[in-house]
Amino acid sequence: MHERKMPATLRFMLAARRSELLGLEDLAQTCELVTRISQLVHALQKERGYSNLYLSGNAPHQRLQLDSLSQAVDSLEGQLRDDLEHIDQNGLGSADKTRLFTRIAYALHNLDELPALRRKIREHRISMQDATATLVRLIGGLLAVVFEAADTATDPDITRSLVALFNFMQGKELAGQERALGVAGFASGYFTSEMLERLEQLLESQERCFETFSRFASPTALELWHQLCASPNSTQACRLREIARRTRPDAQVDCQLGELWFELHTARIDTMKSVETRLEQDLLQHCQQSMQRIRSDLHSHRRLLDGLSDMHAAAEQTRLFSVHSSHLDSTAEDGVSANLARSTLALLQTQTQRLQAMHDELREARQALDERKQVERAKQLLIKQQGCSESEAHARLRRAAMNQGLRLDEVAQRLLALDTEPPPTTSRPR
Amino acid sequence: MHERKMPATLRFMLAARRSELLGLEDLAQTCELVTRISQLVHALQKERGYSNLYLSGNAPHQRLQLDSLSQAVDSLEGQLRDDLEHIDQNGLGSADKTRLFTRIAYALHNLDELPALRRKIREHRISMQDATATLVRLIGGLLAVVFEAADTATDPDITRSLVALFNFMQGKELAGQERALGVAGFASGYFTSEMLERLEQLLESQERCFETFSRFASPTALELWHQLCASPNSTQACRLREIARRTRPDAQVDCQLGELWFELHTARIDTMKSVETRLEQDLLQHCQQSMQRIRSDLHSHRRLLDGLSDMHAAAEQTRLFSVHSSHLDSTAEDGVSANLARSTLALLQTQTQRLQAMHDELREARQALDERKQVERAKQLLIKQQGCSESEAHARLRRAAMNQGLRLDEVAQRLLALDTEPPPTTSRPR
Repeated sequence: MHERKMPATLRFMLAARRSELLGLEDLAQTCELVTRISQLVHALQKERGYSNLYLSGNAPHQRLQLDSLSQAVDSLEGQLRDDLEHIDQNGLGSADKTRLFTRIAYALHNLDELPALRRKIREHRISMQDATATLVRLIGGLLAVVFEAADTATDPDITRSLVALFNFMQGKELAGQERALGVAGFASGYFTSEMLERLEQLLESQERCFETFSRFASPTALELWHQLCASPNSTQACRLREIARRTRPDAQVDCQLGELWFELHTARIDTMKSVETRLEQDLLQHCQQSMQRIRSDLHSHRRLLDGLSDMHAAAEQTRLFSVHSSHLDSTAEDGVSANLARSTLALLQTQTQRLQAMHDELREARQALDERKQVERAKQLLIKQQGCSESEAHARLRRAAMNQGLRLDEVAQRLLALDTEPPPTTSRPR
Repeated sequence: MHERKMPATLRFMLAARRSELLGLEDLAQTCELVTRISQLVHALQKERGYSNLYLSGNAPHQRLQLDSLSQAVDSLEGQLRDDLEHIDQNGLGSADKTRLFTRIAYALHNLDELPALRRKIREHRISMQDATATLVRLIGGLLAVVFEAADTATDPDITRSLVALFNFMQGKELAGQERALGVAGFASGYFTSEMLERLEQLLESQERCFETFSRFASPTALELWHQLCASPNSTQACRLREIARRTRPDAQVDCQLGELWFELHTARIDTMKSVETRLEQDLLQHCQQSMQRIRSDLHSHRRLLDGLSDMHAAAEQTRLFSVHSSHLDSTAEDGVSANLARSTLALLQTQTQRLQAMHDELREARQALDERKQVERAKQLLIKQQGCSESEAHARLRRAAMNQGLRLDEVAQRLLALDTEPPPTTSRPR
């Protein structure tokens, strides 16, 4: 039956399913973008690692290696930009891309800094700390796109996959920052107390990320992760951390340890990449499965609705012919209508229950993102109010959490709640 | 400058704004639908009121009046269905209509019951209770569309308007149910204890709705509401409620009081309609204002981005000509680029802060809807688990809230949390 002739109820049920499919197609495109970003981030992390080695002056022979890593980044960046051209043109149909697009603009803006940064690195016109900071910010901008994709996804399975991937990427990025910190520390022979505090923070934040990742990852990805954690490499990395913690200005270590640290952590990060690849595959698989399910649902829904629609038309026909006859007919007609109404209602109820269940699952997965957002915002608030560094803001939140026996996000939430409460009227100047 | 030649960063900033405008245009269409629904609901409430009078047998002369009220409903329903044809066709571009469309399908499905119901009413083949229940369900379906519109709106001002309107409509609907209950009670000479309990619930629920409405309504709408509450009509309605509370099987009252009750409450509901109309106007005004603001933002944004884009092209030009010259040029070039980068970053930061502020305001307005959702779901849970009526479920929640000194939604939240917790593993059969 032609759709325009369908009763409006059935037409809207069909439109709802179709809207779901459209949303999912849109989401699938975003997920492909996310996997591209994940690859680009990995390449940037490698380039950052070698840039630091190069800047630390201990490995001048690595200029060629650095150039080839930069080229790898350029190639992935080119692919990402091609993808974005495509999204820019086609993604405008759907309505709530404002936040995602703004994040993308941010990430692209950061990427524009790369050529100038690379020149400075090669000419040794920038410190290791500044180069690292720039690349941390650049990678942070890309991670923010992944976060936003997770936060706006509307399919629970895909959202869970995205939450797992984002947290893993973030954890791996912190591992990369840990590597950079170690390179700097060992290069100067010892770790300052600020560096050691930062090291503890990086370790603690990694733990939080991997804990959230563990809650949302597939069993296969989780298995890979457990293997990594139990590997000799991890044990050695722990031992080097212990050495770092014992260094002092008057208890320096051989700066050659920096190369060992770098190699160990590079191997660790490369193994992490294999978990990340698994998570990317999980994500794309969930996209395909959800899309297939919705397509086949739409198809069977369409058939059911066509059937109901035909019954409806037949009932209309009967009504037309019986319009002048007795009231007895109207009872028979009521019977057909009642049957129709019951079938339609059953379909509607199934659909509503499914949407409710999806909504609940989504809420649960987004909770993990929300907690992260609260902590970040509480940090920003402390930085603004108390003029402290990000590192100090984090340390304060952590101390408050330990003192009060609360989780980090609970402390953050209380802090933010205090800030949004209106000032008591009595305290206003008269 | 042609948009395709713009740097990707600027193009995405523009795309973000355009996406916002598209979302708002979509939302404006939904808001017009909501005002239509509000009018249809009012007409249906009138038809329900007169249907009850007609069925109570005390006013057989009102058949003509009833027919004209039915015609008024038909005409508004026809207009709504025309609007929906339009939305059905054009609304498919944007992605997250699944829930809204499902609610609309539900509402339409319910509306299909009207003709059969009207036949039964006119032939006295249905009890007043059953007719009321059917119309309560039908109006409930329409209110659910308004709720969903409020829950999915992405503009804070519009969301606040929708939350105010939904709560007022819901409160007015409960006032309509109170009127029907009173008509039935006075018609039989006294109120049973179940009827009185239901009356208290209706009053309490109205209070909750009007409290939320008050938090989100415009000052003008609020002023109208306060006038209504202070009117002699309200005082008289209170007095009649007192009389109803004192009736018993052995202390019956003149059933003529039913007509007075009906008139008083009809006048009250009609005055409420004027508040509702004010809320509808507020809503459409907010739509227009937001749309104008976004359009002009888009326009000025476009001009700014064009300017930046031209600067960018000029810088590129310089770079091409100076590619073989000394490094001194690259510093000058870096200066231009740095300026450009700063301007772009400032724009990006403004946009991000605005989005964050909008997100916070949205969260606050949606909180009010969330509380309502929790209470409804907790009721459904009690009905399912304990096999009690909705009325009994509500009473239990209320008792629990009073005993524990909590708000209704807090009790609901705790109940739901208990239900979603996994059963302890030890209690499983071995």
